[in-house]
Amino acid sequence: MITLSSDFGTPYPAAMKGVMLQRTDARLVDVAHDFPRQDVRTAAFWLREVLPYFPPATHLVVVDPGVGTDRNALVVRAGDHTLVGPDNGVLRPAARRLAADETGVETYLIDEREIGPVEPTTPTDSTADSSEHRSPRSTTFHGRDVFAPAAAAVHDADIDSLGSLECLEPGTAAVDLQLPAAELEDDRAIGEVLVVDGFGNAITNVPGAFLDGRERVMANGRAVPVGTTFAAVPVGERLATVGSHGYVELDVNQGRGDEAFGLEPGDRVVLEPAPGGDD
Amino acid sequence: MITLSSDFGTPYPAAMKGVMLQRTDARLVDVAHDFPRQDVRTAAFWLREVLPYFPPATHLVVVDPGVGTDRNALVVRAGDHTLVGPDNGVLRPAARRLAADETGVETYLIDEREIGPVEPTTPTDSTADSSEHRSPRSTTFHGRDVFAPAAAAVHDADIDSLGSLECLEPGTAAVDLQLPAAELEDDRAIGEVLVVDGFGNAITNVPGAFLDGRERVMANGRAVPVGTTFAAVPVGERLATVGSHGYVELDVNQGRGDEAFGLEPGDRVVLEPAPGGDD
Amino acid sequence: MITLSSDFGTPYPAAMKGVMLQRTDARLVDVAHDFPRQDVRTAAFWLREVLPYFPPATHLVVVDPGVGTDRNALVVRAGDHTLVGPDNGVLRPAARRLAADETGVETYLIDEREIGPVEPTTPTDSTADSSEHRSPRSTTFHGRDVFAPAAAAVHDADIDSLGSLECLEPGTAAVDLQLPAAELEDDRAIGEVLVVDGFGNAITNVPGAFLDGRERVMANGRAVPVGTTFAAVPVGERLATVGSHGYVELDVNQGRGDEAFGLEPGDRVVLEPAPGGDD
Repeated sequence: MITLSSDFGTPYPAAMKGVMLQRTDARLVDVAHDFPRQDVRTAAFWLREVLPYFPPATHLVVVDPGVGTDRNALVVRAGDHTLVGPDNGVLRPAARRLAADETGVETYLIDEREIGPVEPTTPTDSTADSSEHRSPRSTTFHGRDVFAPAAAAVHDADIDSLGSLECLEPGTAAVDLQLPAAELEDDRAIGEVLVVDGFGNAITNVPGAFLDGRERVMANGRAVPVGTTFAAVPVGERLATVGSHGYVELDVNQGRGDEAFGLEPGDRVVLEPAPGGDD
Repeated sequence: MITLSSDFGTPYPAAMKGVMLQRTDARLVDVAHDFPRQDVRTAAFWLREVLPYFPPATHLVVVDPGVGTDRNALVVRAGDHTLVGPDNGVLRPAARRLAADETGVETYLIDEREIGPVEPTTPTDSTADSSEHRSPRSTTFHGRDVFAPAAAAVHDADIDSLGSLECLEPGTAAVDLQLPAAELEDDRAIGEVLVVDGFGNAITNVPGAFLDGRERVMANGRAVPVGTTFAAVPVGERLATVGSHGYVELDVNQGRGDEAFGLEPGDRVVLEPAPGGDD
Repeated sequence: MITLSSDFGTPYPAAMKGVMLQRTDARLVDVAHDFPRQDVRTAAFWLREVLPYFPPATHLVVVDPGVGTDRNALVVRAGDHTLVGPDNGVLRPAARRLAADETGVETYLIDEREIGPVEPTTPTDSTADSSEHRSPRSTTFHGRDVFAPAAAAVHDADIDSLGSLECLEPGTAAVDLQLPAAELEDDRAIGEVLVVDGFGNAITNVPGAFLDGRERVMANGRAVPVGTTFAAVPVGERLATVGSHGYVELDVNQGRGDEAFGLEPGDRVVLEPAPGGDD
C-alpha cells in the first residue's frame, strides 16, 4: 500500500499515480492533495495525526517548496512504515510518531542521479502537438520524477537492496521539524493554533488533558464552556473540546471556531481556569 | 466494496480509510467528501440518487452533526446493500430506494461499547511530538472510531454473527427522513429545490414526467423552454429539463441555473403550463 | 485499469464508478474531476500531459458541453491506450501523444442505441421517495449512461469483438482540436497561455528550449530571470522556467505567476531576449 499526500491539487497527483502504476501493483490511497501550498508545518501536523491509523505502508509526501534546489530527497523508515519525500522536515513528526520515538527513525538519502528519467509511455513525438522539448527530468516536479518512482521502488523491494536508489546511510543530518509544544504552568497553558481544519475548528497544541474536570475555561480571556461533543452547546455557540487528535480545539457547534475566536494557525492561545461561576 | 461519503473534506477521510484497511482488504470507493457541512438532507438526496448505481456494497456515510451525543449508530440492510452511519435520517432515503420499499429495510443498532478503541499502529509515544493525551475513543470523530471499524466488520462478516458489534434487532425507532414530495394538481406542480449541483443546476422534487409533451413551462412565473439537452437553448440561456435523477431541473446552458432563477435549496418552485405562444 | 477525468466535481463521478464496477473489476484511478466546467481545451491539455505517464489503460473522459445533442460518442485507440469520451476534440491531443503520431490513432463511433439503459440495481420503486419518473437513459448525464458502460466494455473485451457497442470504422470525421503552437522567429517566441495550474503557474505553449542558455528573458516587455527551479529567485519574485511538461512557464516563487504577470488562459505571451545587463 502506498499513500499519497501533497499540496498539488489536481491533476498533478495523477501523473505520480501513473508513474507508480508503471512500476508496482500496490494499492494507492490518497491522504490529501489540498494541503495549504508549500506549508510544510501544516502538512507535517496532519501526517503525524493520520498516518498512524494506516497499516504498515509506504507514504509518499510531496510538499516541497525547495523543489529542484540541493535539498535532499529522503526515504525514512519508521517502525513498520516507510516515508518518501523532501528533506524539509515534513516527514519528521510523522516518522517519530510511527517509530514510537526518535531513535527508531532511520533516514536514507535518495541518489537522484540513480533514478532514471521518467519517460512517458510514448517518448517519440512527431506531430505538432508533441514537438516541444522534453527534459529528461523536470526540475519543478520531483513528485513525478523522483519521489513517485522512489516510493514504488521502496514499496516493492527491500530497502537495503536498492542499489538503483543508492540509499545512503544516515547520520547524515536531515532537516528536523518540531511542532511547537505548549507551555503548561500550574493551571495555565500557553500554546498556539497548529492548524484550522475544514470545519473551522482551531486545533491548538495544548494537550486535551488540560480540560479534564473543567466545565468552563478562559480562552484568550473569554470564558467558554468545555464540551465533550459539539452538541454540548447550542448551534452557533462557542466551546472548547478535545479533538480527535487529543488536543484542545476551539470550536463552534455547526459553525467556524476560527472565525468566532479570531484565530489563525500560529496564533497564540492562552487557556486558564474560568473564575467560579463567573462568565 | 465499501463506499465512503462524508462532509469531512480532507484529510479526515484518510484516517477512516486507514482504520478500515487495518481490518479489511475491501475495495474503497469515494462517493463524496464535500457534502455541505452537517447538511443531512442534501447528503440523503445524493446518496439516494448515486448508491443504487453501485453493485452490492457496504456504504459508510458520515454526515453527523450530532456526533458524540446519544444519537445512535446504525447498520442498515437494504436489499443487497448495507449502510453504516449515524441515526439522523441520512441513510433512510437511500435505504428505501435500495430495498425497493420501506419494508425491505432492516435496522441494527451498533453497540459502541463493543467496538474497541481505535489505536493508531504505534500507541506508545515518548517524544515531545507525541506526549499529548490520547483518549481511547474520540467524542468528535466517530467516523474514524465507530463507523469505519463497523463498516469494515459488516463488510467482512455476516451481520448476524457480529457479536462484537452486538447488533440489536430493529423495531427500534430510527430517525426517519422523508425528502419532500411535490404536490401535483391538474396541470400545476408545487415543489421545491432539493439541491443545487456543482454546475448550478437547481434540482427540484417535481417528477420529470411533468414536462412530458411541453415545449415551454412557467417556472415561478417566468416562461422557459423545455429542453431534452442543455444545448437545446443558446449558451447562457435558461431552460427546464429532466435531470439524470428523473426530476425537473432549472438550468442554464453552460451557466448556473441557481443564479439565473434566484433559487437555493429549499426554495419553493411552482411549475405551470406556459400560455400558448405567450412568453 | 480505467482512469476517470471530468468536470463533474462530486458526486457524479461516483455514479460512473458504480456503473463501471457493476461491469468490471478494473482498477479505477481518478485523474481529475475539477477541470474547468465545459472547458474542452484545458482538459485536452492536461490529458495530453498526464495520460502518457500511465501504463496502458482505458481513459474515460467526460468534459461534454454538447451532452445529449447529436455529437458522437467515441472510442479512440492510441498506441496501447484506449480513450472513451465525447467527439468534441477533448481526446485528440492526448491520443496523438499516446499514439506517437496522428496516423496511429484509430477512432470508433459508439452506437448509443446498443448500450442498454443503465438501470440502478433496484429498479422497482414503490414508496414516496421513489415514485418519480425515471427515464431509461438520461439526456444530460452520458458520463453515467453511455461513456462509463462503454469504458467498462472496452476495458474488458477486445474492441473489435464489441458487437454490443457496434463500434464503427473510422475515416468517419471526428472533431479535431489542435492546441495552438507558438511562433518561433529568430530570437523571439510569440505564444499564449495554455492553462494556469493550481499554483498559479501560467503555462505557455512556448517550448522550453527557448530558454536554453538564457539568464534573463523579456516576457511581454518585462525582464525576468530564467530559473531552473522556483527557488532560483527569492520568495515572491517572478521568474520564467521550464515546467514539468516541457513548456515555458511564468511563475512566482511560492506565489501566483498568473496574478503577478496579469495573465489568463488564452492571453498572448511574447518572449524576447533581455538586453544585456539591462533590467
